[in-house]
Amino acid sequence: MEKVDHLSDERNKAEFNVDEMKIVWAGSLHAFQVSNRISRLVANDPVFEKSKRATMSRKELFKNTLRKSVHAWKMINELRLSDEEALRLRSFMDQPGFVDLHWGMFVPAIKGQGTEEQQRKWLPLANKMQIIGCYAQTELGHGSNVQGLETTATFDHQTDQFIIHSPTQTSSKWWPGGLGKVSTHAVVYARLITNGKDYGVHGFIVQLRSLDDHSPLPGITVGDIGMKFGNGAYNSMDNGFLVFDHFRIPRDQMLMRLSKVTREGKYVASDVPRQLVYGTMVFVRQSIVSSASNAMARAVCIATRYSAVRRQFGSQNGGTETQVIDYKTQQNRLFPLLASAYAFRFVGEWLKWLYTDVTQRLEASDFATLPEAHACTAGLKSMTTSATADGIEECRKLCGGHGYLWCSGLPELFAVYVPACTYEGDNVVLQLQVARFLMKTVSQLGSGKVPAGTTEYMGRAQHLLQCRSKVQKAEDWLNPGMVLEAFEARALRMAVSCAKNLSKFENQEQGFSELLADLVEAAIAHCQLIVVSKFIAKIEGDIKGEGVKNQLKNLCYIYALHLLHKHLGDFLSTDSITPEQASLASHQLRSLYSLVRPNAVALVDAFDYTDHYLGSALGRYDGNVYPKLFEEALKDPLNDSVVPDGYVEYIRPLIKQNIRSARL
Amino acid sequence: MEKVDHLSDERNKAEFNVDEMKIVWAGSLHAFQVSNRISRLVANDPVFEKSKRATMSRKELFKNTLRKSVHAWKMINELRLSDEEALRLRSFMDQPGFVDLHWGMFVPAIKGQGTEEQQRKWLPLANKMQIIGCYAQTELGHGSNVQGLETTATFDHQTDQFIIHSPTQTSSKWWPGGLGKVSTHAVVYARLITNGKDYGVHGFIVQLRSLDDHSPLPGITVGDIGMKFGNGAYNSMDNGFLVFDHFRIPRDQMLMRLSKVTREGKYVASDVPRQLVYGTMVFVRQSIVSSASNAMARAVCIATRYSAVRRQFGSQNGGTETQVIDYKTQQNRLFPLLASAYAFRFVGEWLKWLYTDVTQRLEASDFATLPEAHACTAGLKSMTTSATADGIEECRKLCGGHGYLWCSGLPELFAVYVPACTYEGDNVVLQLQVARFLMKTVSQLGSGKVPAGTTEYMGRAQHLLQCRSKVQKAEDWLNPGMVLEAFEARALRMAVSCAKNLSKFENQEQGFSELLADLVEAAIAHCQLIVVSKFIAKIEGDIKGEGVKNQLKNLCYIYALHLLHKHLGDFLSTDSITPEQASLASHQLRSLYSLVRPNAVALVDAFDYTDHYLGSALGRYDGNVYPKLFEEALKDPLNDSVVPDGYVEYIRPLIKQNIRSARL
Repeated sequence: MEKVDHLSDERNKAEFNVDEMKIVWAGSLHAFQVSNRISRLVANDPVFEKSKRATMSRKELFKNTLRKSVHAWKMINELRLSDEEALRLRSFMDQPGFVDLHWGMFVPAIKGQGTEEQQRKWLPLANKMQIIGCYAQTELGHGSNVQGLETTATFDHQTDQFIIHSPTQTSSKWWPGGLGKVSTHAVVYARLITNGKDYGVHGFIVQLRSLDDHSPLPGITVGDIGMKFGNGAYNSMDNGFLVFDHFRIPRDQMLMRLSKVTREGKYVASDVPRQLVYGTMVFVRQSIVSSASNAMARAVCIATRYSAVRRQFGSQNGGTETQVIDYKTQQNRLFPLLASAYAFRFVGEWLKWLYTDVTQRLEASDFATLPEAHACTAGLKSMTTSATADGIEECRKLCGGHGYLWCSGLPELFAVYVPACTYEGDNVVLQLQVARFLMKTVSQLGSGKVPAGTTEYMGRAQHLLQCRSKVQKAEDWLNPGMVLEAFEARALRMAVSCAKNLSKFENQEQGFSELLADLVEAAIAHCQLIVVSKFIAKIEGDIKGEGVKNQLKNLCYIYALHLLHKHLGDFLSTDSITPEQASLASHQLRSLYSLVRPNAVALVDAFDYTDHYLGSALGRYDGNVYPKLFEEALKDPLNDSVVPDGYVEYIRPLIKQNIRSARL
Repeated sequence: MEKVDHLSDERNKAEFNVDEMKIVWAGSLHAFQVSNRISRLVANDPVFEKSKRATMSRKELFKNTLRKSVHAWKMINELRLSDEEALRLRSFMDQPGFVDLHWGMFVPAIKGQGTEEQQRKWLPLANKMQIIGCYAQTELGHGSNVQGLETTATFDHQTDQFIIHSPTQTSSKWWPGGLGKVSTHAVVYARLITNGKDYGVHGFIVQLRSLDDHSPLPGITVGDIGMKFGNGAYNSMDNGFLVFDHFRIPRDQMLMRLSKVTREGKYVASDVPRQLVYGTMVFVRQSIVSSASNAMARAVCIATRYSAVRRQFGSQNGGTETQVIDYKTQQNRLFPLLASAYAFRFVGEWLKWLYTDVTQRLEASDFATLPEAHACTAGLKSMTTSATADGIEECRKLCGGHGYLWCSGLPELFAVYVPACTYEGDNVVLQLQVARFLMKTVSQLGSGKVPAGTTEYMGRAQHLLQCRSKVQKAEDWLNPGMVLEAFEARALRMAVSCAKNLSKFENQEQGFSELLADLVEAAIAHCQLIVVSKFIAKIEGDIKGEGVKNQLKNLCYIYALHLLHKHLGDFLSTDSITPEQASLASHQLRSLYSLVRPNAVALVDAFDYTDHYLGSALGRYDGNVYPKLFEEALKDPLNDSVVPDGYVEYIRPLIKQNIRSARL
């Protein structure tokens, strides 16, 4: 296609240094350089081509994923890429596959739950991919409630083995990625039973397939669970089912770091603190938050560029029509999502710090901050993934009819993203964990125990319960203190109100279950406060680059004020602000949209995504959308012939009124 | 599979006559009987099997659609089905295809815009399907703004022909269903140019393909626009592109009912009122609202049944876990959607009446009610389709991980449904039309002109601007008058507030464009009031069947009070209710959930959907979910062999550390 830049006018309008913003977005110069280099390495390699995914059959798609994964592994070794670079490579490859579970779940499970001896035995094999592993936890009938798993691992004293068994159909392992067709091994979670006693769910390393010919071992039935949402998306992954028929493994394949079974069948808990498990959870969830900002950014990048290219209505006397991005309705839907991408980025950055902090404390056996860190990561995982899933679909709609085309990239992005709302903790279940933590914090307020970390504001309950917002004019909504106070008052008052309502019930658990919906809302208010406060902290810090800080300030207040408008019922019913102040916030929000408008395209350029990674005819860097749409259309198999397959059998008999000759 | 009914306990709990509710849902005994009979006719015919759609290639899927369409046509003729029955048959076939556009757009366009002579010529051919037509309006660069279309139809006096031409790439017709591979003809919209003057967009009947061998006629380039969202969904449809290179058609193929071009090239408008076009729009949009209730009902049926089957958490000492449907968080998300399905059903029923009313008035040249009817249908189309698209996705999430499986039916339903938010008027653009109408109505309030129809309440502006809600206890929220007044006060106050803010701008258009976001919210408030008021009208009417009316009452107030909670910011900022009254509403809402809970499964049984139509392993009538999931999984092509294709080329070299032998 011709070399053009239909968006150069937009880029020239930018009032800030885009290159400096790229570094802020990436987190550091180093992180930017790695991402920039690796993303282009992937984009320029024809093996990683992905534009035909939608028309591949399931088998072709699966095989294509194997090919890409092995090619990536070859590159990682030949170029001697660092762990960070390898991770980026897999991420820019942008096709879910068995390696994600091998590196993301199997290896970490052995590291976290295996003894040093077990790690010495298994990690070298896994690190070289001489064995390929997955993580077999969820069952057909059991997801969120891990303690309800049915698979059993019964110790057989005579042979010094565990007998792994699936006692019911609902106990079949179901969903694990990489299980269906690829993995040779799995970490399997099962109820440990020894000497007739059930010790609950534990992890075991289980070999599933022969290393010689890949056939499942006797006693193991394994396969793929079938098609999922979308045509590409997770259909490249062999999510699988697994049924055990009295399958035996040596005793030493139980992961024994936290507890073990002795030769005699005695269950012994080790002195390693169980809280360490939560450290891993904090790590996994912070990476999910970081992915949320990434997915939101991709969708926003596509919708922003296309909104600048697309014109509709508003022409006078046949002149050029108005760019869609100039409409306030478009800005009102798009810019808060742009702001969310940045907001999630910065809260993700902060979560990385939190993980380091938690890890250091755990190593010093300081568990005091763990419950707060755990609640905070659970809530942020839930809040950011839900907002991102909705945001991607909103961006699709913002692209009008063409957003519905697979080649817009948005259907694929949505289908591949939405599981994030369910895996690693269902989003509603997670908010209830946050709510429980908040109720506990509120109940201890009078006890002298000072709330710390993200609940620090609850220590100022007396003030926050009675303060009145000082906002008097629209610009006051750009005052960080006033914005924070409104969010703090709202979150605290909602939590306190829930606690009061709970106290009316004789049975706390019954009250909790009756008030679940209110509790979820209180938890979300708390999480939104965290994101707003971390964004404010970011813009109050040191930020380099001409105009960069100004842009981030605008986005920060768009994020906050848009939330305020969306959840206005919360703010007003808790009397945290008045209707007049709400109206001033809407006014300020509109002014901020006007400030962001000329910078919008440059703000998405700062994500530094390649056209390969975006995978969108609408989101192309050069804005040359329409020729690309034609190019993509012509690739469809239906266009292989002018007269379609089926004409002779069906269309011709119909038109010729000779339906009896049709092949029905 | 074994004959069981895992949901019989649920069905036995029902406190109303399900058979009577089926008739209420269908609209009449006759409508129920037709739907019931035709849906079973389709379900029992193996040609209409649809469970393998997800793994068909694009070509297979397209050919399968041709086969089904021709088979359906054969049945319609052989069984001498009425138009109503034929429509039901196509709908229960549940696979979008070219016939939808032929019957839904091509034939109606000729009926509505063709002269009697033209109708006599073309309709018999179309009615027998000797020609197959589509509706070619949108272009690559032009969607919502029909007046901006670029295709030209220039009258050539010498040959008495129109020359149809695509002057630019963006003028290519893009999206029309049935165009890509099937249609022999199209109604094409193009700018009429005669004697050098542009008379704007008009419709023309254009033959596209040879009736002998189906090849495109010279001067016509046509093809498919490629894959769309999802794997099945609209990929069964050949949405197409169409480029004209000075293609000639006889003058008499211009649709000439509203205006014509004479042999001399003179443009003459007829005396047929142009408002007639709006009558068709009212018809099309009411049918979209009716489809919205249908799509919402399908999703809710699946989610409700599976929520009753699925158990998670809450077991004491290893006992049975709690049914997911018993959790308040689940009820709080699911039951308002169940209520919405019924709400949209009844407002759709009312719209059918409105269409008849409008038609009769138009025939009597009474155009007075048309603007109100037009605004009302536009707004309801927008509001119900947006809520339904979101509702389907919410139902998918309510099914946990398994909702992500294609065989849950929900990914397919979502992908096939979401275009409804864009076609026949983008949902945001439509709400702006409503807003314009509301602003006009407000501006005329003092003029003595009495607002009618759905804006009747605006005539009580004085009262509604100053009234205070009389709600004092939770049960007051079951008082139809108090509920209606709150919704009326909110809608009116939002409209009046917009009008006030608009009046502050010197330039009305500039003010309108600045306040777009507020205007959309005011329009939505107006539309929600309509739905609530029609639901209340329904339950105040005569309803047969034991307990049926009671159930509908509960659903009506769930619908209203849930909206009230969701848009609490509107109600509080306009002072339509107080925070205390809002809290009473939440309380009442929770009580209503408890009342609906035992009836939930029976309330979705009342939709009378076959398992074929639902197409969901999770939503099966008998609740026998888990064996069905296994059955569906085993159908996946990846399970054709135990060792997957690609093992030798990729997995084996990886495990054997011999990557150089891999085929990269």
